[in-house]
Amino acid sequence: MDAPHARAAALDGDDPLAAFHDRFLPTDLVAYFDGNSLGRPPRATADVLDALVRDGWGGRLIRGWDEGWGDLPVEVGDLLGTAVLGAAAGQVVVADSTSVNLFKVLHAACGLRPDRDEIVVDTTNFPTDRYLVESVAEQRGLTVRRLDPDVIEQVGPDDLAAVLGERTAVVVLSHVDYRSGTILDLPAITAQAHAAGVLVVWDLCHSAGVLSIDLDAHDVDFAVGCTYKYLNAGPGAPAFLYVAERHLASVRQPVPGWWSAAELFEMADAYVPAPDIRRMLSGTPNVPGILAVREGVRLVGEAGVDKIRAKSELLTAFLVELVDGLGVPLLTTRDPARRGSHVTLRVPDAAGVARRLGERGVVPDVRRPDLLRLGLSPLSTSFTEVADGWSVLAEVLGADH
Amino acid sequence: MDAPHARAAALDGDDPLAAFHDRFLPTDLVAYFDGNSLGRPPRATADVLDALVRDGWGGRLIRGWDEGWGDLPVEVGDLLGTAVLGAAAGQVVVADSTSVNLFKVLHAACGLRPDRDEIVVDTTNFPTDRYLVESVAEQRGLTVRRLDPDVIEQVGPDDLAAVLGERTAVVVLSHVDYRSGTILDLPAITAQAHAAGVLVVWDLCHSAGVLSIDLDAHDVDFAVGCTYKYLNAGPGAPAFLYVAERHLASVRQPVPGWWSAAELFEMADAYVPAPDIRRMLSGTPNVPGILAVREGVRLVGEAGVDKIRAKSELLTAFLVELVDGLGVPLLTTRDPARRGSHVTLRVPDAAGVARRLGERGVVPDVRRPDLLRLGLSPLSTSFTEVADGWSVLAEVLGADH
Repeated sequence: MDAPHARAAALDGDDPLAAFHDRFLPTDLVAYFDGNSLGRPPRATADVLDALVRDGWGGRLIRGWDEGWGDLPVEVGDLLGTAVLGAAAGQVVVADSTSVNLFKVLHAACGLRPDRDEIVVDTTNFPTDRYLVESVAEQRGLTVRRLDPDVIEQVGPDDLAAVLGERTAVVVLSHVDYRSGTILDLPAITAQAHAAGVLVVWDLCHSAGVLSIDLDAHDVDFAVGCTYKYLNAGPGAPAFLYVAERHLASVRQPVPGWWSAAELFEMADAYVPAPDIRRMLSGTPNVPGILAVREGVRLVGEAGVDKIRAKSELLTAFLVELVDGLGVPLLTTRDPARRGSHVTLRVPDAAGVARRLGERGVVPDVRRPDLLRLGLSPLSTSFTEVADGWSVLAEVLGADH
Repeated sequence: MDAPHARAAALDGDDPLAAFHDRFLPTDLVAYFDGNSLGRPPRATADVLDALVRDGWGGRLIRGWDEGWGDLPVEVGDLLGTAVLGAAAGQVVVADSTSVNLFKVLHAACGLRPDRDEIVVDTTNFPTDRYLVESVAEQRGLTVRRLDPDVIEQVGPDDLAAVLGERTAVVVLSHVDYRSGTILDLPAITAQAHAAGVLVVWDLCHSAGVLSIDLDAHDVDFAVGCTYKYLNAGPGAPAFLYVAERHLASVRQPVPGWWSAAELFEMADAYVPAPDIRRMLSGTPNVPGILAVREGVRLVGEAGVDKIRAKSELLTAFLVELVDGLGVPLLTTRDPARRGSHVTLRVPDAAGVARRLGERGVVPDVRRPDLLRLGLSPLSTSFTEVADGWSVLAEVLGADH
C-alpha cells in the first residue's frame, strides 16, 4: 500500500459517515468524481420508485392524488427546508426545473421592488441564470448590471458596493461557483444587499446537501436549486425554490397554473392564488421525481449536513494534497473554508484527459478547454476512492508519483 | 350471464386491441373508469424505470447524458409527433408540465402577432388554461376576450365569428372538453381563425392518444398536452408542446434556460436560441419521466391511433346504451363522432355516488356537484370491464336493471 492509500485507509477508518457508502447502488467504476453533476442513486430510491409504479400508480391509480401525492411538493419541500436548507416549514416547494423556478422567483422578487429598474448578476454565473436574468429583465423593462468578479476570489463587498444602488431591485448569485468551487459569503452579501434595499436570489445548486446554508437565519429572500447533485435525486429530478415567509403574502409569480390556485378543484372562474407557498407551483407535480427527492433528502438529513460538510472539507483537502504532489495547478481556492465540494484542476486538453481517465474507470467532469472538475460527494465517496482515482490520474498525466 | 355481459363478451371477442389489456400492470379493481385522468402503468414502463435507476443512472451515471438522455426531449417528441399527433419530426418536445408549456406557447404565439392586442379563450376551458391566458395577457398588456359556448355543443363557427377580429392575436381552445367530452372541430376552427389572421393554440390533454389529430394536415400553429391520461406515462409525467415548423425560426419563448440555447455546454456569454424545436426547452430534462412517456407512446403507436379511436367509439357507445337503461341523464353528446373517450353522467351528489362506487371497486371521476365522468381508455379497458362497472353503478343508484 502506497502512502496515500495508507492515509486514505486511516481517514476512512475515522469517517463517521463511512456506513453511508453502502446506502447507494453499487458502481463498477474505480472512482466517480462527478457527484457534483449527477449524484449516485440511493438503494432506497430504486425500491421506492418500483413500489410507486406497481403499488401506487398501478394499484391506487387516481386515488393516489388524494392519498398523499398532492401534498408532496410542500411535504418534501418542508423536509428539504428543515433538513438541508435551514428553512422552517412552509417556505420551500419541490417542483419544475431550476430554470423554471429561477424564472418564477426572479419575477416574484422584481415584483416586490416595482420602483427599481436594475437586476444585478455576475458574469461568471451559470449560463441558465444569466440567460433568465436577461430574459426577465427584458420582459419587465429592467436593465441588467453585471458583476465581473475574479473567478477564484468571487464576489466581494467592494464588487457589490460598486453596482448596488437605489435602482437595484434584485441581485442573483450562486452560493458556490460552478467552476472554481469558491463559496460566496452568503450571510455578508445578503446583509450588504439588504442594507441597500436590494433583494437577493441565491442559486444553491452546488451547495444544497453539502454545505450548511441557514436560509432563515441569514434572512435570505429567495433561493432555487437542483436536487440531482448532492441530493442524489436522479437525472432531471424536480428542483426546489424558497420564498421567505415574510414575502409570501405579497409575491406573485408569472406561471399561475392550477396547482398555484387557492382551490385546486373548484375550477373557479377567477384566479385566486393559494395563501401559502403553493402559490409558487404551476402544473401537476411529478410524483416519481419528488419521491426520489424525498429519498435523497432523507439520506442527507439522516447523516446531517454538518457532518457531511466536515467530511467534504477533509475529502477536498486530501485530494488537493494528492494533486499538489502531481504538480497540477488548481483553479480552486486552497482555503478549505471557502471551498465547496469540488476541486478544479487546470490541465491542457481536459477533454482528452477525461477520456483517458474514463477508459480506466475514473469519471471526472470537464469544462472546456482546460478545467477538470473533481466532485467529491461525501455520502457516497470514500477516501480510498479518492486515492484510487488519484493513482489513475497520475498515470494518465504521466506524472512521477 | 346477463344481456350486457353477453354483449360485452362478444365485443371483446371482436376487439382487435384486446391483447393490449395484458400490456398493463394488473389492478384488483372491478372497473377503472378514470384513465382519462391517470392512465394505468404499462408493464414495460416498470421494467424500463427500474433499469434506468439501476443500470442507467446507477451504472452510466453522468455519462448517460452523452449516451442518449440529452436527446430524449426531441427524440420522444418526434415519436409522439409521428405516432400520435400527426406531426412530422422536429416540431414536438416532451418537457415540463402542461401549464409551463402553455405559458411558453402563449407567449410565443402572441409574439408572432405584435400588432394585435387580444387573446380569446372559452370560459369552459380548463382552469389552468384560463389562468395562464389571463396572466400572459397581463404580462403583455393584452385584453382577454371570452367565448361562452354551450357546454355540450361547444364552440361553433358563429361563436368564433362573434369574437375573432383584427385585434385578435391568438385563440386558445381544448380539443376535447374536459367536462362534457365534446370534440371541437379542430380543422374548421383552425381554418376559421387563420382566415381572420389569428393563431390557434390547441390543448390536447383529452385527445392525445385517443383521437386522430393530424396537426400538420390541419395547419395547427401551436399545441400542448399532458401524457398522464391516454398516454399512460404516470402521475405528473412530463408534458409536450408542438410548434409548427413554419413558426420555428421566428418564435421566442419566455423561459430561455440553458437547454434552449444553441450550444448547451459552450457556457456562452450571449444567449443564442437553438435553431430548432429545442429552443422551446428550459431546464434539465426529467429523464425517468420522458422514458415513461416513450413507453406510453410506443404502446399507442403499436396499436395505432385509428384503431384506438374506433374502439373508443364502441366503448362509449356501449356505455351510453347501458346508462340509458338506468335512466341516468348524460352531459355528453349522443353523437359518437363528436364524443371523446369519456362519458359524463349527471347524478345528484356525484361525490357520494363515487364514494360508494369506490367501496365496491369501481373508480370514476367526479366534477362537483353533479358530474360523474366515466373515462374509457381503449388500450386498457375491455367491454366486460364496462359491463362490470355498469352492474355496480346500477346497484349503487338503486336502479332496476
